[in-house]
Amino acid sequence: MAKELTSRAGNYAQWYNDLVIKADLAENSAVRGCMVIKPYGYAIWEKMQRELDQRFKDTGHVNAYFPLFIPKSFLSKEADHVEGFAKECAVVTHYRLKNNPDGSGVVVDPAAKLEEELIVRPTSETIIWNTYKNWIHSYRDLPILCNQWANVVRWEMRTRLFLRTAEFLWQEGHTAHATREEALEETVKMLNVYADFAENVMAVPVWKGVKTANERFAGALETFCIEALMQDGKALQAGTSHFLGQNFAKAFDVTFMNKENKQELVWATSWGVSTRLMGALIMSHSDDNGLVLPPALAPFQVVIVPIYKNQEQLDAINAKVAELTAQLKAAGISFKYDNDDSKKPGWKFAEYELKGVPVRLAMGARDLENNTVEVARRDTLTKETVSFDNLTAYIKDLLDAIQKNIYQKALDYRASVTREVNSYEEFKVEIEKGGFLLCHWDGTPETEEKIKEETKATIRCIPLDGDTTPGVCMVTGKPSKQRVVFARAY
Amino acid sequence: MAKELTSRAGNYAQWYNDLVIKADLAENSAVRGCMVIKPYGYAIWEKMQRELDQRFKDTGHVNAYFPLFIPKSFLSKEADHVEGFAKECAVVTHYRLKNNPDGSGVVVDPAAKLEEELIVRPTSETIIWNTYKNWIHSYRDLPILCNQWANVVRWEMRTRLFLRTAEFLWQEGHTAHATREEALEETVKMLNVYADFAENVMAVPVWKGVKTANERFAGALETFCIEALMQDGKALQAGTSHFLGQNFAKAFDVTFMNKENKQELVWATSWGVSTRLMGALIMSHSDDNGLVLPPALAPFQVVIVPIYKNQEQLDAINAKVAELTAQLKAAGISFKYDNDDSKKPGWKFAEYELKGVPVRLAMGARDLENNTVEVARRDTLTKETVSFDNLTAYIKDLLDAIQKNIYQKALDYRASVTREVNSYEEFKVEIEKGGFLLCHWDGTPETEEKIKEETKATIRCIPLDGDTTPGVCMVTGKPSKQRVVFARAY
Repeated sequence: MAKELTSRAGNYAQWYNDLVIKADLAENSAVRGCMVIKPYGYAIWEKMQRELDQRFKDTGHVNAYFPLFIPKSFLSKEADHVEGFAKECAVVTHYRLKNNPDGSGVVVDPAAKLEEELIVRPTSETIIWNTYKNWIHSYRDLPILCNQWANVVRWEMRTRLFLRTAEFLWQEGHTAHATREEALEETVKMLNVYADFAENVMAVPVWKGVKTANERFAGALETFCIEALMQDGKALQAGTSHFLGQNFAKAFDVTFMNKENKQELVWATSWGVSTRLMGALIMSHSDDNGLVLPPALAPFQVVIVPIYKNQEQLDAINAKVAELTAQLKAAGISFKYDNDDSKKPGWKFAEYELKGVPVRLAMGARDLENNTVEVARRDTLTKETVSFDNLTAYIKDLLDAIQKNIYQKALDYRASVTREVNSYEEFKVEIEKGGFLLCHWDGTPETEEKIKEETKATIRCIPLDGDTTPGVCMVTGKPSKQRVVFARAY
Repeated sequence: MAKELTSRAGNYAQWYNDLVIKADLAENSAVRGCMVIKPYGYAIWEKMQRELDQRFKDTGHVNAYFPLFIPKSFLSKEADHVEGFAKECAVVTHYRLKNNPDGSGVVVDPAAKLEEELIVRPTSETIIWNTYKNWIHSYRDLPILCNQWANVVRWEMRTRLFLRTAEFLWQEGHTAHATREEALEETVKMLNVYADFAENVMAVPVWKGVKTANERFAGALETFCIEALMQDGKALQAGTSHFLGQNFAKAFDVTFMNKENKQELVWATSWGVSTRLMGALIMSHSDDNGLVLPPALAPFQVVIVPIYKNQEQLDAINAKVAELTAQLKAAGISFKYDNDDSKKPGWKFAEYELKGVPVRLAMGARDLENNTVEVARRDTLTKETVSFDNLTAYIKDLLDAIQKNIYQKALDYRASVTREVNSYEEFKVEIEKGGFLLCHWDGTPETEEKIKEETKATIRCIPLDGDTTPGVCMVTGKPSKQRVVFARAY
C-alpha cells in the first residue's frame, strides 16, 4: 500500500513526519522552514480556532489586529525581550524590486532602502504596547483585553512540520490592567482556559505549572504553561501565559491616572497557543494506522461507506443513507458520505483510518435487508453491527465515548510513565526511558543547567497542583520546597 | 462635543478619516502605511469573514494556508504578473540581528544575508501554483478549490485607513480546473458570491462587470469585478474574480493527465476581497452623526440605555431589561445593555449613534409604568414608543426593515447619479458631478487612456447586466458594442 506509515516503534520521528504528509495535514514549502497547511490539516486548526475563540470571548476578550512589521528599534526597548527575540528573525530592508538590466528577472532596488529596518513580528508585545500607550490614560480605560489571530516568524534553523516552523499561525492575547493582582488573575485565568481546551477538546491531559527563571518568556516576571506528554515519552509545551509585570509599560512609557489621580505604570499579561498544538494533537493519540482524532476536532466525525455490487444496490443504499444524513445533520454531527465509484471500500477504509475519522459506517446489501449498519471506532479499531433504528442517538453517544476514551488513554499512558525519582543516579537511568520525572530540586539555575547539560532533561514546570511536600535536591542535597516536573522535551 | 465629525459636505475625505478614528474602527500604527484594526472595527471584519467563509464552503471550497514569503525568482516566472506585482513590496534580505557593538540596541547581522531574497506576499498565485504542481497529476486531482485568509503587503506610497494600506487582510481563492469552461464558470460563480454578499449583507448595491484590458489583474485573461458607489460620487472596486487561463500553469509547469491519458495544462482562477470592504461599508451608509451599520454586520444590533434618577429606578429597569435580553438572546439578536453609571444617557446616545448601532432602546421610569420602551432607528434617526409586549418580534422585524432600507437608500442614491452620456463634451461636465456615467466607447486602450488622462475617469467595468444596444464611441465616433460604466474611483 502506497500510504503505509513507518511504525512508531521503528522510528518515531519518521512516523510523525510520514503521518503529517500522508494524512494530508501539511507539507514543506519552497521557502525554507515555512509550511503549507493543507485543507484537511487546516480544517482541524479552524476547529481549534473556533473553540478557543469562543472561550476567549466568553471570558470577556475581543479580537483586534496589529501590524505584521515591527520597527527594529522597538525590539531593544525591553532589555530581556530583545535577548530572547531579536536574534533569529526575518528582516525587511527594502521596499521595491526593479527589472534586472540584463533582462533576467527582478533585483532589489538599492534606491529603495528603508531608513529603519522592519522585523517581521516574532511576537507582538512591543508594537502592541507602543499602541496601548495611546489607548490608556485613566483607570477607566482599563482593563484592555485584546487577542490577535496572526502569523509570526522566528528564523528556526531546524524545523519540523507544526512543531517548529519559521512561520507559524497562532493567537496572542495582550492585556493591560490597573493592578498587579488583576494581571496575575488574568494570567492564571487564561492558563486555565488553555488547560480546559487541551483536556476537553484536544483530549490531551496537561500539567499546569510555572516555568523556572531559565525557561521564562523573555520579558516576563512569571511564565505559566501547560505541558503535555507525547507517546514517545517526550514532553511538549502546549501553551504559555505570561505575567509581564510593568516591564513593557516601562519600556513604552504606558501609564494611567488611578482613582486617586496619581500616575501609575500599567500591568501586563500575554498568552498564546499556536499551530504547534497540531503536533501535540497528532502525537498524543495517533497510532501505526494513522491519525486518531478526538470527535471535537475532527473535520468530519462520521464517514459512511457503501458496499455494493451493482447500481441497484447502490441506489438502495443511497436512499437509506439520505435518511440517516438528514438525522445526523439535525443532530449537529458532521459526516461525509463517500460513494465515489472509482475507489474500492478497502481503499476507503484505509484512507479514513489514516485520516483519523472517529466513526466509520459501512452499509451493504445485507445491512439493508437486516436494517443494520456496521459501525467501526477509530480509537479502538473495533466493529459492531448496529440497528438502523435510533442510529443517530447511538452515534452521538459513541462520539462522546470516543472523546472520553481518547482522553483516558492519554491520561493512563501519562500515569504509567510519570514517577518520583529521588537520586540523580536513578534520574540518569530513568530519563532514558522517557516520561515525566517528579524530583526535588534546589531552586537554582545552576543545578537546572547542570542537569540539562548532563541529561538533556529540562524542568517542564513547577506544578500548580503537584505534591508540595518539601524534600532535598536530588543533585545538591539542598532543601527543596516541592517536587518539580522533569522531562526531555520537544 | 469631543467626538464631533467633520461634515461630509464640508470635507468628505476628512469626514471619512474622522469617522474611522472616532468610531474606534482603526488607526495608523508606528509602521508607515500599516494600520491597527481596533476591536470594534475588527468585530465588523469578523462578521464579514464569517458570512463570506460560509458562502465559500457552501460552494464547495476549503481553506488552507500558504507561506507568507515568496522567493524572489517566483515573481518573474509569469511575465505580466511580475510587471503588476513585483515592484512595490517588502523585501526580506536578512534573517538575524545582533547586538550593536556600541551597546545601542541591535543591528542587522551582515553574516546572515539570505542567498535569495524573500518577498512578503503581495498576492499568492506564484507560491500556490508552485505548490499545486505537486498536488496535481491526473484529472482525478481536479478541481482544487482552496481559499486562504491571510495578510498581504503592497508598499503603497499614499495610504488611507482600510482603503489603501501597505498591509491589509484579505481572502484569496485559488482554484485549479481541468477545462477552460469550468474555470470560467468558477470565476463567474465567485463574482456572484461577492455580489450577493455585498448587496444582501453589506447592503451595498454593486455593478457586476468585466474589466478592460488596462484594468485587468496582472496575469489574468479576464478580470470580473463588483463596483460600488460611495456617497461622494466616487466608485470603489469592492471585489475581483480572475480567470487566469493557463498562464500560471505554464509558468510553474502544472499539467495533468486527462481522461484520454493526454497531458494538458491546468486552468486557473483567483478571487479576493479585503479589508477595503470596510471602507466601502463606511462610505456607503454613514452620515454626519457617524457610522450607519447594516444589522447583518453590526457587532451588536441593539443597545439598551436605562434612564433613571436613583438606584431604585435602575434596579427596576435592570429587572425589566433582564426579561428582554433573555428573549433577544433566544431570538439570536445581539445586544449590549449599557448601565454604566459613570456616563450620562445623552453621552451614550451620541456614542452609539457614532458607532452605528442599528437600534437603540431607552427605558425610563415612565416606560416602566406604561410597559413601553423608546425605540430609535439609527438609519432614519426616528424614534417611537413601543409596547414591551412582543418587543422582540418587533425588533426582529425592525432589523429586517433597517437592512432593507439601508440597501434601498444606497440603491436610490446610485440611481440618482447614474446617467447615460452621449458626447465627450457632456461627459467632461458630468464627470465633475460624480456618479456613474454610462457611455459608448470604441473598445480601444488608447481611447480609454485619453479619457483617463483628460478627466481622471476610468472604465469601472463593462457591465454584465447592462444595456447592450450598440452605438458609437463618444470620443472617436467609432462603433461601440454596448455602454460601459465610467466613474472616478478610489
